[in-house]
Amino acid sequence: MSNGKPEIVIVGGGFGGIKLAKLFAKENVEVTLIDRHNFHLFQPLLYQVSTSVLETGEIAYPIRAFFRDCPNVNLFMAKAQGVDQKRNVVLTNHGEVKYDYLILAAGATTNFFGMKNVEEHAFGMKTLQEAVHIRNHVIHEFERAEKPYRTPEDRKKRMTFVVVGGGPTGVEEAGAITELIEIQKKEFHKLDFNDVSVKLIEATPHLLPMLPEDLQEHTVRVLQKKGVEVMLNTQVVDYDGDVLTLKSGVKIPTTTVIWAAGVRAVDMMSNCGGECARDGRIWIEENLMVRGAVNKNVFAIGDCAAFMHGDMKRPLPTVAPVATQQAKVVYKNIMKLIKGETDLEKFVYKDLGAMATIGRAEAVVGSPTKMTGFLAWCAWMFVHLIRLAGIHTNLTVAIKWTWNLLSGTRLGRIITNIKL
Amino acid sequence: MSNGKPEIVIVGGGFGGIKLAKLFAKENVEVTLIDRHNFHLFQPLLYQVSTSVLETGEIAYPIRAFFRDCPNVNLFMAKAQGVDQKRNVVLTNHGEVKYDYLILAAGATTNFFGMKNVEEHAFGMKTLQEAVHIRNHVIHEFERAEKPYRTPEDRKKRMTFVVVGGGPTGVEEAGAITELIEIQKKEFHKLDFNDVSVKLIEATPHLLPMLPEDLQEHTVRVLQKKGVEVMLNTQVVDYDGDVLTLKSGVKIPTTTVIWAAGVRAVDMMSNCGGECARDGRIWIEENLMVRGAVNKNVFAIGDCAAFMHGDMKRPLPTVAPVATQQAKVVYKNIMKLIKGETDLEKFVYKDLGAMATIGRAEAVVGSPTKMTGFLAWCAWMFVHLIRLAGIHTNLTVAIKWTWNLLSGTRLGRIITNIKL
Repeated sequence: MSNGKPEIVIVGGGFGGIKLAKLFAKENVEVTLIDRHNFHLFQPLLYQVSTSVLETGEIAYPIRAFFRDCPNVNLFMAKAQGVDQKRNVVLTNHGEVKYDYLILAAGATTNFFGMKNVEEHAFGMKTLQEAVHIRNHVIHEFERAEKPYRTPEDRKKRMTFVVVGGGPTGVEEAGAITELIEIQKKEFHKLDFNDVSVKLIEATPHLLPMLPEDLQEHTVRVLQKKGVEVMLNTQVVDYDGDVLTLKSGVKIPTTTVIWAAGVRAVDMMSNCGGECARDGRIWIEENLMVRGAVNKNVFAIGDCAAFMHGDMKRPLPTVAPVATQQAKVVYKNIMKLIKGETDLEKFVYKDLGAMATIGRAEAVVGSPTKMTGFLAWCAWMFVHLIRLAGIHTNLTVAIKWTWNLLSGTRLGRIITNIKL
Repeated sequence: MSNGKPEIVIVGGGFGGIKLAKLFAKENVEVTLIDRHNFHLFQPLLYQVSTSVLETGEIAYPIRAFFRDCPNVNLFMAKAQGVDQKRNVVLTNHGEVKYDYLILAAGATTNFFGMKNVEEHAFGMKTLQEAVHIRNHVIHEFERAEKPYRTPEDRKKRMTFVVVGGGPTGVEEAGAITELIEIQKKEFHKLDFNDVSVKLIEATPHLLPMLPEDLQEHTVRVLQKKGVEVMLNTQVVDYDGDVLTLKSGVKIPTTTVIWAAGVRAVDMMSNCGGECARDGRIWIEENLMVRGAVNKNVFAIGDCAAFMHGDMKRPLPTVAPVATQQAKVVYKNIMKLIKGETDLEKFVYKDLGAMATIGRAEAVVGSPTKMTGFLAWCAWMFVHLIRLAGIHTNLTVAIKWTWNLLSGTRLGRIITNIKL
């Protein structure tokens, strides 16, 4: 305890962690938020950075800026590496951080399912750096392809963009790339755009598994109309940076594979003194406490936690609403423990439905009412816009999206990683 | 010649190069613009990226976007390395580019005056990458300084920010850093801001040499009021990344030295078959042709060219108006040569005056009328805003500046180079 106040430590500044810190900020406690970054990342819009629609600063918000007026909330910028539950400390690359109550909200990372080659050569889509890498790489490939000394095969390989994974990220990324290509077409006067192709690969028979079947089929049709080759029931087995190999034996020459096919909990979860599921998520009780927590003071929420109770067939999905709803319950439960109460609340998930955008003026919304097309896109825009941090960002992003809708320009098409 | 059209090659997509390409775009010629980047950089606002005011995409504009409707203008993204005047080719890291007429508009780079240690450890301020490095580093130093295990000396060293060079870039950078610190002050609840200092070092007795003396003195006073320690008549002799050594023997412990003390032409200029001045700029004739050009078809303009004629005491300064005014004359002269005319126009520089901003709502303007304070700042804003490429950027930057003026927030304070 510092000044006799309970020390609340939160690992992770994602949707769950920020929500928690905001709730605890009003209480008579000290809050330390540990994150390897100094910003909160609005992950649902990463694909827009990777395709030159938005700038990094529009989806990344300084964590400390949320807590400017909360002197009891502090950021400890460090990479959390594990928890010593017996000693009540979080282990980080900047030393140990002591807690009275700990919430693990450390999130997820890309799951390459053990395929080391794919991990080495494909682009992940979970961090800001990865999104910027994709942007730099995709834009650069156009410049490289136009060079006069390229062979036709080399040119075609560089102009083949493959996205793996038919969830919202994959669908959004594939749609956004086709739109980026339409803009490049106007500006690369010497490049033959018949060489350009975009492929979306999905292992199961369906895109967007969380939506009803008619919306899944609608999504396939819209993507095909935009020029995406949708390959369902297709599994990737290898990628060496030049050739993508499918389970069927088919080989696709390509220099760009974007991997949006799976997530797993971040590595540290295996070192937190709990029991983890196959995808690395730590098992939690109905009150969100980590199963078997030594001192009954460690909780976990969101993408890094596996919650499955009653008649549930699988753990809750790794989506933001799970994390933010769980944050509220953890907050209440820790406040109860601080007050000496023991009747902890059980978490019940309220599914708010699912939506995905397929491109400019096109989206699918599953609930509360099914929508497609421009109206669905407006709904998607609105929902994401109001959740972005900061009025100023709301404003500039709204201007950019409107501008993009009307003029189809993308100003972010700059390559920033040229070695000088 | 391609399709019988004269091949105009321009090296460099700065103010001069872009202006030239726009002029030639309307003619019956083929234009190839060579640049190592795919974007035009608005260098006067680099300091705003380095201090988290603006985003990279707001001062970098894709070169191809300027020439969307000009099929005769193409970008060749490559690093130009020299010119073989006898064979009429530009040498690049992506092969040779043949020309009928060549304009060198390759710009300048940082001049460390042979001090290798300084070059290795200080930050330059000429490229977008350098500005982002400064931003990442400065913001990160606050996070590092707040870590509980720091010694007081270590903390103070990290909180000492030194800018070297009293020209507009140095003055603007030092002013902008003090404002950044004011914002950090509100968000680092555990850091002692008495440890924080900003120093501006200038070798001569004056800041902003191109302005009248009363404005120079005004600038010193404004900077001091903002908390900048202005050190005139002060020369740097060494910097090892930890300690900056002055000629006087004084040592300043600091982890941040931003070098804005001099420029020189880019390295390739020494390999263009011309004669270069001490700062590497290639000497040009009054008609802007490179002195001694073998085939009378190679010109040079802007920061990479040294123009001195008649009763001039020193070559023209390395500022944008010189480059853009020279672009117009080179364009006319090459069109004359294409038509077989030989009476080339002589270049006469029209000095448009100088201005510099010292911070939020503070600037100095030297001519046509002397101004200081808010009015001067509005003039500075206006002049820079209208020169930014693209209406959309004008709009978002105007919003950002207004927001910044009113609320003093800086949203770009994110560290994007964390190793994952």
